[in-house]
Amino acid sequence: MTGPINKSNPQGPWVAEIVAVGTELLLGEVVNSNAAWISKELANMGIHVYHHTTVGDNPDRMKAVFRQALGRANLLILTGGLGPTDDDMTLSVLAETLETPMVHDPLSEAQIRDFFIVRDMPMSDTNLKQALRPETAEPLKNPMGTAPGLFWNVTGHALLPPGPRVIAAFPGVPRELYAMWAQEARPKMEAVLPTSGVLVTRFLKFVGIGESMLAEKLRDLMALASPTVSPYVGQAEVKIRLAAFGTSPKEAEALIAPVEAEILNRVGAYCYGTDDDTLERVVGNHLVAQGLTLSVAESCTGGLLSSRLTDVPGSSRYVGVNVVTYANAAKTQFLDVDESLWVQHGAVSPRVAEAMAQGVCRMTGASVGVSITGIAGPEGGSAEKPIGLAYTAYHRDGEPTIVKRLAVNPKYSREHVKYWFTHLTLNNLRLFLAGRLQPDSPVETVI
Amino acid sequence: MTGPINKSNPQGPWVAEIVAVGTELLLGEVVNSNAAWISKELANMGIHVYHHTTVGDNPDRMKAVFRQALGRANLLILTGGLGPTDDDMTLSVLAETLETPMVHDPLSEAQIRDFFIVRDMPMSDTNLKQALRPETAEPLKNPMGTAPGLFWNVTGHALLPPGPRVIAAFPGVPRELYAMWAQEARPKMEAVLPTSGVLVTRFLKFVGIGESMLAEKLRDLMALASPTVSPYVGQAEVKIRLAAFGTSPKEAEALIAPVEAEILNRVGAYCYGTDDDTLERVVGNHLVAQGLTLSVAESCTGGLLSSRLTDVPGSSRYVGVNVVTYANAAKTQFLDVDESLWVQHGAVSPRVAEAMAQGVCRMTGASVGVSITGIAGPEGGSAEKPIGLAYTAYHRDGEPTIVKRLAVNPKYSREHVKYWFTHLTLNNLRLFLAGRLQPDSPVETVI
Repeated sequence: MTGPINKSNPQGPWVAEIVAVGTELLLGEVVNSNAAWISKELANMGIHVYHHTTVGDNPDRMKAVFRQALGRANLLILTGGLGPTDDDMTLSVLAETLETPMVHDPLSEAQIRDFFIVRDMPMSDTNLKQALRPETAEPLKNPMGTAPGLFWNVTGHALLPPGPRVIAAFPGVPRELYAMWAQEARPKMEAVLPTSGVLVTRFLKFVGIGESMLAEKLRDLMALASPTVSPYVGQAEVKIRLAAFGTSPKEAEALIAPVEAEILNRVGAYCYGTDDDTLERVVGNHLVAQGLTLSVAESCTGGLLSSRLTDVPGSSRYVGVNVVTYANAAKTQFLDVDESLWVQHGAVSPRVAEAMAQGVCRMTGASVGVSITGIAGPEGGSAEKPIGLAYTAYHRDGEPTIVKRLAVNPKYSREHVKYWFTHLTLNNLRLFLAGRLQPDSPVETVI
Repeated sequence: MTGPINKSNPQGPWVAEIVAVGTELLLGEVVNSNAAWISKELANMGIHVYHHTTVGDNPDRMKAVFRQALGRANLLILTGGLGPTDDDMTLSVLAETLETPMVHDPLSEAQIRDFFIVRDMPMSDTNLKQALRPETAEPLKNPMGTAPGLFWNVTGHALLPPGPRVIAAFPGVPRELYAMWAQEARPKMEAVLPTSGVLVTRFLKFVGIGESMLAEKLRDLMALASPTVSPYVGQAEVKIRLAAFGTSPKEAEALIAPVEAEILNRVGAYCYGTDDDTLERVVGNHLVAQGLTLSVAESCTGGLLSSRLTDVPGSSRYVGVNVVTYANAAKTQFLDVDESLWVQHGAVSPRVAEAMAQGVCRMTGASVGVSITGIAGPEGGSAEKPIGLAYTAYHRDGEPTIVKRLAVNPKYSREHVKYWFTHLTLNNLRLFLAGRLQPDSPVETVI
């Protein structure tokens, strides 16, 4: 794998450590989503990340963490602790760690004063503390707030090991970080990073197959050095990430293509899409391409299937009306499900699912009808019909209605069971619209 | 603040470090929300957290991080790296770090086999790797998946500093962690933590008021030492947490009660419930208490309001049928909304909302009807009717229908706007059922 060259070690790419400062993170009041965001950015720049660290607003512990990070990484990215209050100490502790005096930055002060003037707000004196910076560091402008960031090339500093060493510090507020990263920090970082390549990534998305089974079928490919092949577990699905470095996007893509083809050759039956595809969107694309309209009739999922279908912008092209028939009587009254069906077979039965899918088409005039009836828990399960059991049906004029059985882990929460039911139903609907849903295929199983 | 006593240092509470293992975290593919969740749990147990660390699937770096954490903390909480694949190495590296052999655990194997038998799925041999554990550690049962966790009291281990040392390891999948924490790990931790007191917490839940406004109104109370008063931002709502230590629950509750009363005195109008209350549940309780049934007619929210109402177990007592009329024609066909209303006023208008709420009661026979029609984005907004605008109506036989306007931040994502719409609608419905919804109150605003 190639990447930007470490000047002190021409064989290796740069290594970064992301350090978040703030007691609120250690109390669990805030989720550190910045670390993931920055990591993605760094991966795209070809920089490796070996550690994320979070430390509270405590000078001694902060100093120890900063020193350790500067010892083991070329690039130290800091977030948080740049605010105006007394427990915002990132810059002063950083200056102490590197035995550098703090100086007043008149340009930063002017920007802070401007921020308040533009907003016609009173400035408190504590805000002026934010115009201080370590003497040899540059400020990073903050277009969204008062706290300037910092960019500091400390390569060759007497207290640090040899090799390139760069520090960039940002506020903890995500939208300020994002803006400063793109406008100020990334160009400055790229200027000191001699990039030798580009990282290309590709995601393949799977449903109906578990992580361990997927890993078993792709074990040899997951051992490849380029592209790397790694599984990620998502909500009710698994993603496979392919990533390759190349001197150009084309070169990296050429490394990915044959491995992607081999993966699809082995487990393509479970793959519903790539990259930003969602099941909802893939279903919508099928409906638009075939000029179809859809209505769903839900029981146990209570409207979640309808809501997910309409999460797609432009879904009004194929969704006109959906119905949630929670009560049995409603299934009869609105969907014309014969009362004898739920009396004889129970509401959670293949026959009721079939009648609901056919009935919703009659009720709404849609060209495709989908139904779901099941047991979401935590009550209502029995030995014969446990929590996590559902029947779904897929109907289209002039074709036989297909009924499928779903089985979801009965220990999942009610909300989770509902989500799995909708996910498996969307996947069946995708196959149905592609003419690939088999009525006689085995029971749907779930990891 | 008091807390459990560190045996080696009777003055101080225990210190924990949370270590997440997984290259996917360092690539930014997954946000480490587990660290925040665990931190909150530990804070409730009176345990301090000084560091969060994330490390990739690399044995040398893992070992260094484990060693450092066991050097500076009493309690090491690990997440991730317990899966069946070759890059899941948390337990084996932990065993190596503490020079302890790995042994096969027959009970864990039986549970793993059961997991697959119950689901009628083939088990792959790699899953059996998950039945290995360090010899002197106990497995933690995983009711939601195949990877058992681990609980290991390593106090007095020759390689570690003196003082209490406990390790608990969990899978990275949040729902597995949550279940194992509550059912298995927390009781085991509490058994080794010599608590000197009891922490009592109380959450007050607010909707319709932002965090900064709430903080401004409660600033003096938030400076109290006992109970501590802290705001937490949730999805479309804010919680205030009151926490006090006492030698008995009664003593701690006596500290909380007067402060809770003072908070409600100041901002009680925005408080919908406490602790585990959800808006959905509070609405359901009102309906059950008054013997009412409810039907909702949704447009822009696409079924999400219906889905949230039916997230409450037992909601079939008051929900019989709901309808999603996405198309204008469907509003006329099923809800009998006069066509001239949406032609003249537009589908997103107070008059259409009113007619939908009345119409859904006629259609379904429910005693209460709620409607929502709005613009969820990212398309469809105009200067007059921007994204984030919705009208909702609340109808009950023999009473004037109440219409409310909602305004949500137009920069939110489509999914987020939908969620806010349903949250504000549920809150209005709660007030409506309590006879407290004012038709002439000002426009709902959102921070």
